[in-house]
Amino acid sequence: MSFEETIEAKCINTIRFLSIDMVQKANSGHPGAPMGLAPLAFILWRDHINFNPKDTEWINRDRFILSAGHASALLYSMLHLTGYDVSIEDLKKFRQYGSITPGHPEFGLTSGVEATTGPLGQGFANGVGMAIASKKLAVKYPDINHKIYAIVSDGDLMEGISAEAASIAGTLQLDNLIYIYDSNKISIEGSTDLTFQENVGKRFEAYGWHVINEINGEDSEKISQAITDAKENDKPSLLILKTKIGFGSPNKSGKETAHGEALGEDEVELTRKALNWHHEPFNVPKEVNEHFKEITKGKINYYKNWTSKNLTKITTDKLEQDWASKTLKALDLNEEKDYSTRDVSGMVLNKLAENNEWLIGGSADLAGSTKTYINNSSSISSNNFDGINIHYGVREHSMGGINNGIALHSNFLPYAGTFLIFSDYMRPSIRLAALSRLQVFYIFTHDSIGLGEDGPTHQPVSQLMSLRLIPNLYVFRPADYYETVVCYQSALKLTQSPSAFVLTRQTVPTIINETLQGVEKGAYIVHPYGADIEEDDIDLILIGTGSELHLCLQAKEILSRTGLKVRVVSMPCWKLFDEQTEEYKNKVLPQKVQNRISVEAGTTVGWQKYIGDHGFSVGLDEFGASAPGKIVLEKKGFSVENILSISKRLLRS
Amino acid sequence: MSFEETIEAKCINTIRFLSIDMVQKANSGHPGAPMGLAPLAFILWRDHINFNPKDTEWINRDRFILSAGHASALLYSMLHLTGYDVSIEDLKKFRQYGSITPGHPEFGLTSGVEATTGPLGQGFANGVGMAIASKKLAVKYPDINHKIYAIVSDGDLMEGISAEAASIAGTLQLDNLIYIYDSNKISIEGSTDLTFQENVGKRFEAYGWHVINEINGEDSEKISQAITDAKENDKPSLLILKTKIGFGSPNKSGKETAHGEALGEDEVELTRKALNWHHEPFNVPKEVNEHFKEITKGKINYYKNWTSKNLTKITTDKLEQDWASKTLKALDLNEEKDYSTRDVSGMVLNKLAENNEWLIGGSADLAGSTKTYINNSSSISSNNFDGINIHYGVREHSMGGINNGIALHSNFLPYAGTFLIFSDYMRPSIRLAALSRLQVFYIFTHDSIGLGEDGPTHQPVSQLMSLRLIPNLYVFRPADYYETVVCYQSALKLTQSPSAFVLTRQTVPTIINETLQGVEKGAYIVHPYGADIEEDDIDLILIGTGSELHLCLQAKEILSRTGLKVRVVSMPCWKLFDEQTEEYKNKVLPQKVQNRISVEAGTTVGWQKYIGDHGFSVGLDEFGASAPGKIVLEKKGFSVENILSISKRLLRS
Repeated sequence: MSFEETIEAKCINTIRFLSIDMVQKANSGHPGAPMGLAPLAFILWRDHINFNPKDTEWINRDRFILSAGHASALLYSMLHLTGYDVSIEDLKKFRQYGSITPGHPEFGLTSGVEATTGPLGQGFANGVGMAIASKKLAVKYPDINHKIYAIVSDGDLMEGISAEAASIAGTLQLDNLIYIYDSNKISIEGSTDLTFQENVGKRFEAYGWHVINEINGEDSEKISQAITDAKENDKPSLLILKTKIGFGSPNKSGKETAHGEALGEDEVELTRKALNWHHEPFNVPKEVNEHFKEITKGKINYYKNWTSKNLTKITTDKLEQDWASKTLKALDLNEEKDYSTRDVSGMVLNKLAENNEWLIGGSADLAGSTKTYINNSSSISSNNFDGINIHYGVREHSMGGINNGIALHSNFLPYAGTFLIFSDYMRPSIRLAALSRLQVFYIFTHDSIGLGEDGPTHQPVSQLMSLRLIPNLYVFRPADYYETVVCYQSALKLTQSPSAFVLTRQTVPTIINETLQGVEKGAYIVHPYGADIEEDDIDLILIGTGSELHLCLQAKEILSRTGLKVRVVSMPCWKLFDEQTEEYKNKVLPQKVQNRISVEAGTTVGWQKYIGDHGFSVGLDEFGASAPGKIVLEKKGFSVENILSISKRLLRS
Repeated sequence: MSFEETIEAKCINTIRFLSIDMVQKANSGHPGAPMGLAPLAFILWRDHINFNPKDTEWINRDRFILSAGHASALLYSMLHLTGYDVSIEDLKKFRQYGSITPGHPEFGLTSGVEATTGPLGQGFANGVGMAIASKKLAVKYPDINHKIYAIVSDGDLMEGISAEAASIAGTLQLDNLIYIYDSNKISIEGSTDLTFQENVGKRFEAYGWHVINEINGEDSEKISQAITDAKENDKPSLLILKTKIGFGSPNKSGKETAHGEALGEDEVELTRKALNWHHEPFNVPKEVNEHFKEITKGKINYYKNWTSKNLTKITTDKLEQDWASKTLKALDLNEEKDYSTRDVSGMVLNKLAENNEWLIGGSADLAGSTKTYINNSSSISSNNFDGINIHYGVREHSMGGINNGIALHSNFLPYAGTFLIFSDYMRPSIRLAALSRLQVFYIFTHDSIGLGEDGPTHQPVSQLMSLRLIPNLYVFRPADYYETVVCYQSALKLTQSPSAFVLTRQTVPTIINETLQGVEKGAYIVHPYGADIEEDDIDLILIGTGSELHLCLQAKEILSRTGLKVRVVSMPCWKLFDEQTEEYKNKVLPQKVQNRISVEAGTTVGWQKYIGDHGFSVGLDEFGASAPGKIVLEKKGFSVENILSISKRLLRS
């Protein structure tokens, strides 16, 4: 019997042609990588990955990440063949509106998809996060012993985020990580030699990884043996698989033309001939279906065996129900004292850690500044995964990607701290958290020019507003001690969304506030600062966020003495406010009051939404300056005097 | 004579204590790194760096980048001592408002500062760009033979951007690059072992670098010899310098407490004692001043020698004066044909390349898709720096940082292409280009959900608006062939700003437009689509950008048939429009016309500025979907029908 006639070859070609057919039918997509990777995929699922398509949430399933998300047709084919809820009809709707088989894999949409991938490097970092999560869980539940597999491409390994994550994985010696590098020597612009001549294997050895070089992508035995070796090794493993992009296509294999477009009807036919494949498009030979059923049956047996032995009930509640109200009371508040909101955030985090086995996180080498260190816990290291504190190093982007992976893995609530300015470094990961509906927390301190002497290189101007633009991301900018606590409480309830806390470096007074429940609505009238005024009598509304709310309150005091009726509105979270009823919104910002001033130490673009045509926005549309924080703020117009003068001008106009 | 009494030791301690004194006086800053690096800085400037403080623009000066920008006190001290326009008074104003010695080095502000650094990893990438620029220049002007030096820190090397740039530097074998890695084993959170156990030397060897390990940071001879070796090596070099952070401080040296705050008066005194330094703060011993004068004299001699031999006049004009008008006529336009704006951009770039020896750039492995390849030129490689085309690989962030370096080096106009969604990956570099006032071009294609099947992972929603928030960045979103050309013309004139072009994947019709000069004003009335209507008669203004302008034009046609008087405004560049006179702005968007609808396939936040309280914004505040572009656009409300229905609703209200 020739190899072609073996069931293995048939399975591999089925994977190959399902992928080809999907792309061809959609007339859009990436056939090349699936064609080259089909043998690896088959071997990986047959011999190694433990899964149960009927219990996709099984805590000890092996995780598989297609970091090279453009090869999605491969993943969907595998999910179909191994019994997941992905039908041939779904495959035929590849890349069509409303289908569960979109252009790139989306977590939450398709059964069996473990991570949203496509933007390169992200999946690589996600896997590192999953590996950390798994090891942490295994401290308490030693039966957790699954692996994290990923297919990573040249592009994944060129991206900086993967370099960062690889260094962390090496430092933590994540031996549960097995990455297969699809080394096909082809990138979109041509040979990888154009831009990628480095010795990848040597680089990963330098990170502390176990590397297996030069595995022939068509050699099933070698592939399987390499994976077995990797499973037994006590380091993270990188398997360098030499594949041919577009394998089987007479005119396109080994070329960049196989990468990002359908092969074309003619070339598909030629490929069928070349691989001696006589089946109609989307046809899965009966014996192939049977064989995959057998494979899946074996997997389910393993699953049953594991679950019957391991009755561990893993709690899924992240928090006691009454944590929020308890905490506010329990925190050691001195109302006479000024706190920076970053300090309060640190107190809340530490309190949260007391009651929560799911909290995990850290900062990009700024724990002291971002107040993200949990004092009653230890640091995660290669020989201790029991702690809460992760040291990400100066690696914001992978911090974001790793935290997404931690959240994807199970029930963890990961947090990440850095300066607000460096949110830019991790923006692609923040966006993917929002798209994937992951609850992760971002703790962004040093939130304005108020940070002072570090100067414009470190002073955020556009970052706050820019975060507000990301769909499904809640951005909180609390003004004081109480607001910070309530913002955390609100964010804890948003289990389908990431939340960003934007916090001061400098201290701010504590407002003795009678209307704290308003914080949860995103914006509210600061009692007793103006709620007592009848709507018809209001001369002016001052809207402030964060540290600038205090300027509004001071300005209000002075304006009130002149007989003006001024309302102060605090707006810690735009998105929550936007979600309120029209009635509530109009109560806080009555349409008839057109004299409105917003005060926020960031870009003014966007504030027109709340201040209206007649309003004025005190903000900053230029870069900051290096000087003590108070001086920079004053020079840039964030002073009571400036608000007073603008108020007068506005009231005159 | 003990070492302490040598002039070398005195110079080194002068550098050390100037830095200590600056930080102490400001009571803010980073003393630790300068204290550890003082010997290296002295040796580097004395024996190696060629410079002339009186001709800071000298084309063949060695470039020095302090990628670890927080060590700015070190750089300012060196600039003072070597005769740059940085006085002791300037040093005393370290980190104060309006000084030329801000917290982190800022290009353009301080004589001798070659790059704005602080956000880690950026300087590393800048140097790679400078090295490319220098080598390209040397093809035409072989006398150009200077080096690029940088000090990089642990943090720099943890950041992904530096990993990306290092791989490119290795591939291109940039032998003019000499980086000194300040390996002090300390990061802010503690020992680097917490998070950075990799073998850095081995990693850089894997990239193709020449690595010199374990150089004692106090051993002047070894340091100088290593730099000499690096200069002679035909690879980029990394010198791993073992230093002690806070060297000399009895209680803080070798500890993270030496990193980010003033030592404190007492510790400064103890350090003075420990290093036997009896000079007052900011006092530079006479013999030290003399010695530095001698050093500088030698440098100026070298300068004179070089300049007298090399009479090469390097053109500084980037373009012929009449390039712009010429180009528009010269481009091979078929008005009957539809073009995508990315296609037009490609035509413009190729035309630009014909007349311009300063153009250089490429894409992050998307040349074919972003239309950024210059056909009549070659690819830059380790043995060819004559070409225009750089292959950055899938490395958006370093592409941004490298292009900043190219622009910093001399007169080059670098461009960078990728999908708009991946602008997020390079955002920190874009921001630094804006802060540093560098003219660089970003070519962001696939600019909306209109890109289609690749789905929400690749569809930008917030990116366009988010770019508009960055101060000093001009964002252009042209609607057709003509607008694209004029946007390029406008951007070419903005020599102190970066410009981003936001371009369609899909084709759009060519508008036979009578008012093209309006494009340069950022927004204009599309003739003859409504300019003929008297202001008082306008029922409705439709404002569109990019591909959505065409929906506005179609809607206007239909609405006009019902007797409504509709003006269509095209708004390719917000910032340019904002810079126009109030008169012009009011002419385009008359205050009295309150019925306004904006149509743009991106977030609506921000549009309130132009549509006003009564207006409506057709936009997208959620993620996209995977399907053919037209279908996604329609499903998300970007159809003539939807604009018509909203228009009717608005006119009724």
